[in-house]
Formats: sequence, structure tokens, C-alpha cells
Amino acid sequence: MEGAALTRRGLLVGIGAVGGAGAMYAAMGALGLAPSEQDKAFTPPRPGDFTLRGRAAASVVILGAGVAGLTAAYELGKAGYDCTVLEARAEAGGRNLTLRGGDRLTELRGPAQEVRFGEGVYFNAGPGRIAPWMVTLDYCRELGIPIETFVNRNAAAYVHTNGQTLRARTAQADMYGYVAELLAKATDLGALDKMITKDDRERLLDFLRRFGDLGPKLEYEGSERRGFTEFPAIGAGTPITAPGSLHQVLAAGTGHAITNDFGYDQATPMFQPVGGMDAIVTKLVEAVGADRIRTGARVTKITTLADGVEVTYTGGTLKADYCIAALPPHLLARIPHNLGAEVAAALRTPVPVPAGKIGLEYGTRWWELEDRIYGGVTETDLDITHIWYPSYGYHSERGLLVGYYNTDENAELYAALTPDDRRRRALTQGKKIHGEKYRQNVLSSASIAWERQEHIEGGWVRWPSVDSSFTLLQRPAGRVYFAGDWLTHLIAWQAGAMESARGVVTELHERVLRSP
Amino acid sequence: MEGAALTRRGLLVGIGAVGGAGAMYAAMGALGLAPSEQDKAFTPPRPGDFTLRGRAAASVVILGAGVAGLTAAYELGKAGYDCTVLEARAEAGGRNLTLRGGDRLTELRGPAQEVRFGEGVYFNAGPGRIAPWMVTLDYCRELGIPIETFVNRNAAAYVHTNGQTLRARTAQADMYGYVAELLAKATDLGALDKMITKDDRERLLDFLRRFGDLGPKLEYEGSERRGFTEFPAIGAGTPITAPGSLHQVLAAGTGHAITNDFGYDQATPMFQPVGGMDAIVTKLVEAVGADRIRTGARVTKITTLADGVEVTYTGGTLKADYCIAALPPHLLARIPHNLGAEVAAALRTPVPVPAGKIGLEYGTRWWELEDRIYGGVTETDLDITHIWYPSYGYHSERGLLVGYYNTDENAELYAALTPDDRRRRALTQGKKIHGEKYRQNVLSSASIAWERQEHIEGGWVRWPSVDSSFTLLQRPAGRVYFAGDWLTHLIAWQAGAMESARGVVTELHERVLRSP
Repeated sequence: MEGAALTRRGLLVGIGAVGGAGAMYAAMGALGLAPSEQDKAFTPPRPGDFTLRGRAAASVVILGAGVAGLTAAYELGKAGYDCTVLEARAEAGGRNLTLRGGDRLTELRGPAQEVRFGEGVYFNAGPGRIAPWMVTLDYCRELGIPIETFVNRNAAAYVHTNGQTLRARTAQADMYGYVAELLAKATDLGALDKMITKDDRERLLDFLRRFGDLGPKLEYEGSERRGFTEFPAIGAGTPITAPGSLHQVLAAGTGHAITNDFGYDQATPMFQPVGGMDAIVTKLVEAVGADRIRTGARVTKITTLADGVEVTYTGGTLKADYCIAALPPHLLARIPHNLGAEVAAALRTPVPVPAGKIGLEYGTRWWELEDRIYGGVTETDLDITHIWYPSYGYHSERGLLVGYYNTDENAELYAALTPDDRRRRALTQGKKIHGEKYRQNVLSSASIAWERQEHIEGGWVRWPSVDSSFTLLQRPAGRVYFAGDWLTHLIAWQAGAMESARGVVTELHERVLRSP
Repeated sequence: MEGAALTRRGLLVGIGAVGGAGAMYAAMGALGLAPSEQDKAFTPPRPGDFTLRGRAAASVVILGAGVAGLTAAYELGKAGYDCTVLEARAEAGGRNLTLRGGDRLTELRGPAQEVRFGEGVYFNAGPGRIAPWMVTLDYCRELGIPIETFVNRNAAAYVHTNGQTLRARTAQADMYGYVAELLAKATDLGALDKMITKDDRERLLDFLRRFGDLGPKLEYEGSERRGFTEFPAIGAGTPITAPGSLHQVLAAGTGHAITNDFGYDQATPMFQPVGGMDAIVTKLVEAVGADRIRTGARVTKITTLADGVEVTYTGGTLKADYCIAALPPHLLARIPHNLGAEVAAALRTPVPVPAGKIGLEYGTRWWELEDRIYGGVTETDLDITHIWYPSYGYHSERGLLVGYYNTDENAELYAALTPDDRRRRALTQGKKIHGEKYRQNVLSSASIAWERQEHIEGGWVRWPSVDSSFTLLQRPAGRVYFAGDWLTHLIAWQAGAMESARGVVTELHERVLRSP
């Protein structure tokens, strides 16, 4: 799994969204690269900011109608800024993409896919979950978008590692059981007498008994926490067979899966908009005004001037007081500009990360009916990395699994296949966990390779070296500001795009109010 | 907390529903008291069972329109049994009780409460959550009741023990951090060399690094998993202050809270019907037919005869071929009957458990807006035991907390107070966790003391000794069958009532088909 290669205090790799990496950003702060003033209490620009000063709001051209661009337009719009958003794709939203029946998904260097999901079935091909502390939830509240729980942890889901499939509850019970037993024994043997007082020793043993469900001899003998082949009902139920040995449990390699939701960004509960993540895009576009967003508008030149910005795009040339460039950095880097060599070099620094997902629509929700899995994630060491079970539409006729959500080499492997072959491979892998039923009753599928999405070309970016490029681009180049998750400590999260946009809006507005 | 007093392999105390006690029922099986044949694949009675044999369905009088009685009537009704349900209370449902504005809640030895909750606010005064493996979810599916996640674990909720309040994520990170460090050190010191091979030692250390987020020296130095005062955004965020010492962390006594959802009955995710738990009652009553349920009908005598059963109640006398007594055992024990001394003694064996809850309605969802707690449970060692945050109505104007959910002495303490004093006490306790805002903007409240509910008189029952009473009552006494969660290994769960009803329906139907 991708997290396995990470160091504890890693780089800005933005892999948190895939799962499990919560503690990756400290290096930035340690090296003094983090912005000194954080956006603590954001106050959106207000109409009164201008009218009280007897002046007009400025005009802003925003490049990219992804979540960063839309958020910037939305917040500036509150004060009456004259915003125009240029979007190269046919639709606003960027990576916030929800696919439904009737959609057509084109791909660079690959065939288009006609999406054939049934009524009520959707596939969040981009972001799929929101941590409750994230600003994304504030926008859901402000925009009136109903939310519901995204199940990110499920004791009934599976862990598939080293060819073995266990329920998550079983993997956890066994690992915790043996860890508790070993520490209890070490404590009993006096190995820790220098580190721990006698009273604390009793407290520790009390905790370990609970934690590992240890028997009276402080040994792990299995536990009902492992689950049942027949759950208790009238009778006591039939617990699943006894655990393997300590060696077997350690060799199973389930540690990554067990700790996957320990990070502050993955901890339960998480949330999703009801009906699809693109509700956020729909509501932002409504609030901004669809007439302010020009789709199919690919930017070909950016020029900062003494009195404004000139942006050339496939539909003509726009002049505005300011520009917010909210495109992925690797695409910005290809657009001719006069922002200087340092900016040009900085834009070339972050490296796009391949990321892919497949939505598999089934004619029956066998994972609920047979496996009693209602939402959640199965962690694997296969190239599919994860299987996501849907956290909506419980008990309905059809349902959609995410059959892979992978990055880097695994994503590239699937991207290189045709859509049919991606599905075939995903089904073959999933069968290792769920058996033959995984390949039966598949109604349709759709797969995305984000590095092959035109005008996006990556799942997110990774900063290969922690240098000054990151902070350089957090400052404006002349009258051009940069915005996006890639300029924050929340790479690959919509919250990053939103926080970045709010930061830029604040700075730009202060500058406008200060300007003569 | 109530779980603290439990032994690992405890008695049939039915406390699982309150939280944390998953492994309590093994004693029954070990003593050979569990039924030898479990209800593995329930097949409801079908009309064809009678028509193919050219005979009529039997008549059944069911005592109690709680979940057990309703389920029995529903399943028997599928085959055309002539069922009559006698319910002493004014409404069907028993302990499945959802309170809404306009309801009136009476109480034995206490004043009635007028419930004044606003539109859309409800309070599940009885059962509140469903584990996904439980048959309760099957009935939701079959009856077309939409379900949604009940958040039973929330990293952002609090743990309040020994006067100290921590976020759950902080308590967990610290305990896991130190446990990992201690075991890593013991391993390093060679204390476990006899128990563990060199390869396994490396595997264990690899797990412990992840599990405790240990530093390079295998020491716990705090972790971003503990949470932030300012979460990462544009900047790296501000982690909350460093953890206390090992001694401080052990002395905090958070172990019970950390392991609270480890049991198979409490593991995340859990579920609830959309709009209130009583959707199950509403749909069962609809399916059974409201005309088959006589409310206000208190049973005063049960007589089993050679050719049927005679039941006298406040409205007259009913004769039927069979009877299913689905009342609480302590109430059944008071009704004159001719079922014999052994049955009489057995019915007196289980002891009702006091249990109480309060619903606190606020004019603002400050726990979401300020604390970023969306659903979940705060565990405490106060007499309120738990605070539940609502898993529905996110971001709406008002919201309802469960301000206590307690049992035994704690429940009795609150039960003895007036409704106003219960609220005052609950608010004073909750203030220790949430501060003064906990007592502000409370719009209304309603509290239940289950042992003071007429015709129920207890939250559930506890079997004080594991003897033959349990199995005796699982068999019919003449033509009288017994049903209820109290006759299963799922005491205090609706699933217990349903499983019991299905078991009785199966046995009764087989007898009817066998009878001449």
C-alpha cells in the first residue's frame, strides 16, 4: 500500500487523501517554510467595504473553475467584485467530479466512456469524503448542502494482505490481543520496572486486559471481538475459529490497515454531501452565477501589467485589475507568462501524482445482504489498494463499489489499460477477497485516470523537495495570485483548495482596499 | 462507568446496549444452557403451509405490542394466522419509543411531561442504534424503512475521567503511544526473546511504530493524531500541547472510553432509521393491521387449556389456540396463571435494570459549530455516563443531545428527581465537559426513567444467576410461549426481541402443522 513507503515525518506528498497518512507536514513548519500568519478567522469581503469608502469593487479574472477558483469567485462576489472565471473544460468543478448515468467521460490518450449507471447511482470520481474539522463542511452548511456520514472505518470490512482475507474486526482483535499479552508479560517479568511505578503497573495491566480482551492469566486466547460465523441471537452464537499464533498474526501484515484511520484527516466520522460530491460545485456555480463562468476557455497567455492583468484565452483576451491563477501548477507552468524566471521554476517544481478510481455498479448490494458490510473500506496490498463500499443508498436495488482507488505505479498500471481491461483486472483482484460473486451481476462501470483528464493531468501534486517554491507561490507575482490545494498543507483535499482561495481573497481584498 | 464493574466473562446482564460490553455471554454456552439449535435460517410461515394441507391457520393471542409481540404478529400474519395483540399501554411499541413535540410522557410515581421539541427534532428514548449484523436491519429493509449511520465513535468527542476532559483522539493517541513505546523498549531490552523470533521482533517493531506514531528512537513524543488547536490549512497548523507523562496518561483512566467500541455489538458503523427509531413500530403496526392491536388492554389472567388458551384482560376474555406472552418477565410474574410453579419461579428470576435518558433540545448546534462534533458519544465517569450528539439533522437550526444515558444507581438517582431537577443536574454535569454554553440556549427537555414507565418497569432485565430458568422459558408452558429480548443473548437490543419472536413463531408453526 502506498502509505508503506512513507517516512513518519515525510514530504509534502499530498497522499493523505488516499488513506492513513496524517503526520506528513511537520517538515514544512520545522524548516520555517509555513506561512507565518495563518488564516485563523476568515472574514469574507463585504459590499460595505467598498461603499463606505465610496469606491467600486475591482475586477478579477480567475483561471480555473475548480474548487479553488469557484471559492475565490464566490467569496469575492459577496463584496461585489466583478469576477470572470475561465475554465478550459466543458464543465466547472475540476477534480470534484461526480459521474452519473448519461455522462460521457473523455480521456487523453484513451477512449471516451459512456456512463450507464442506473437512476440514483453516482460515483464520486474525485474527492469522496470530508473530515468534520475541514472548512468544506462550513461551505456545505453555508450553501445549504445536506450532508451524511461517509463510513471510513468498518469493523465488518476486510483486510487483505499477503494472500489472506480477514475481517477488520478480526485483524484488530488479534493484533491488539497479542500486543497486550506481550506487554503484560514484559511488565510481569519486571522488564519495565525502571520505567514504571508499581501503581502505574496495575493501571497499565488494567488497560491491557481491556485493550486485548486478555484472559485471567493475561494471555490472549481469542475474543468475541473477532466476530462470529453465527452472531449471538437466541443462542450464544458461534465465534469464528481461534486466532493464529503470534507469528502468524504478525506475518499477516495487517498493521497498516488497522492504523489507517488513526490520522487526524482520516478519523471517524467523515462526511459526504447527500447525492454526490458535486453538490458543492453546483451550489458554488449557482452562487457565483453561471454567466460569470466561461467554459471551454483555455488560457494561452498571462501578462501582469502595472495597472492590471491581461489574460489571453481561446475565446479572446480579458483585462482585469487582478488575476487568481487556480490551475494545477504543472498546467500553469506551460502557459506563457511574464511572471519571471523564479515563478516559472517554482511552477515546475511540484510533480503530478497519478491517481485512479473505478466505479463498479452491481444489480444487487451483495456486500450488505451477504457480507453485512454497510459502507467502509477494505484495505488490501493488491494493486487496487482499496475497495470502498457505498455510504448511501443502503438497502436499495443497485449499488456502486469503488473497485480501486490507487496512486503512482498502481494507478499508471490501470491507466494504461482500456476501460474494459481496467474493469476486468479490478474484478479479478476483488474476487480474491469476495469470491466469484464479485464478478457477477456487474451492470456497468466507469474508471478515471486523473493524469489523463484533459486540463487537470493528475490526481494532485507532490512537492519533491521542501524548498522556497511553495512559499514563493503563496505570494502574488505582480497582480497574479496563485490558489489551489497544492499551495497548502491540505494537498488532495477540497479543504486545501478552499483554504487557499480564502487566503488569496483576504490578501487581494486588503490590497484593493489599500490601493489608492 | 457501568462497564467498569463487569468481569470479562460475565453474566447475562444485558448491559451491552449501554456501551462497551461485547463479551458477556459465553458463560451460558459454557454451562450448556444455550439452546442447542439456533435460528439459523428463519423461514416465515407462508399461506401455502395451510392451504396445501387443506386446513385453516390457528388463532394466536399475543401479549404485548412491543417489538417481540409485533414481530411475532407480523411473521404469523404472513401465513394468515388470526392474531390479536393485547397491549396495556396507550400505544404500541413498548421500549421502542421516540418522543416528539406534542407527545405527553406519563410516569409512575412522577409528574407527566409535555414534550415541546421543535419540528424535526426527535428523541429516541429507548433503543437508539443498530449493529449491521443484527436482524433489525433486515426488518428495516423488508419494511422499507430508510436507514442512516448512527455515529458511535467520534475522534472529536470527549473523554471525561477523573475531572479531566480530553478529545477522544487525544486520549487514544497518548495511550497507544505509550503502550507502543513500552513494548518497543521491552522488546529492545530482550525481555521477550523467549517468546518472539528475531524476524517477528522486526515485524512487531514495525507495527508499534505505526500504532504509537513513535519517533526514530522508538519513543512517544506526541503525535499529530492528538489533534490541533488550529488544524492544518495554508499553514501546518498548531498541534495541541505535548502529552503528559506515562504516569499522567495512565492515571487519567481513559481506557474504558478508548475500548468502548471494541465489542462486536458496538463496533462502527452502527445505524438508525431515518426520522426516529419508532419507524420500526409504525411499519410493523401497519403490516400487522392496527385493528388487530387492542391498546389499553391489561392482561389479568392467563389460562392454558387442553384445546387452547384463555386470556382475561381489562376489556374482556379472549380465547385462542395459542398464546405468545411477550411482556417483560417481571410483569408476567404478577399475572395469575396456571402455568405451574416452575414457570412462576422462572419468571421471577430476571431482575429489571433501571435505565434513564434525557433529551436536551438546544436552539443552536454548538457542538457542531464550535466543537466540530458531528454525532458520536462522549464517555464520562460522571453520573450522566454518556453524552450522545445527534447523528441526524446536521447543520440544522436546532438539535437534541442525549444528556445522560445511564443505568442502575445512576439511573435511580436521576429517576428520583423531578424532570426539572433531572435537567438541572444533567446540565451541571455536562458543563464540566463543555463549559457554560452547555447550560445556555436549552429550549426544552424530556427525560425517561424506564423503571417508572407503566407496563414496562425497567430498561431491560438482568439474570442474576445462570440457571435453568432461562431455558425453561424458552420452551412453551402448555399452549403459552414466551418471547422477548430477555430470553436471548441479545438482551436490551431490539434484535433480541425479533430473534426471540422468530424462534417462537417457528416452533409454534411447526406444532400447528404437526397437530392433528
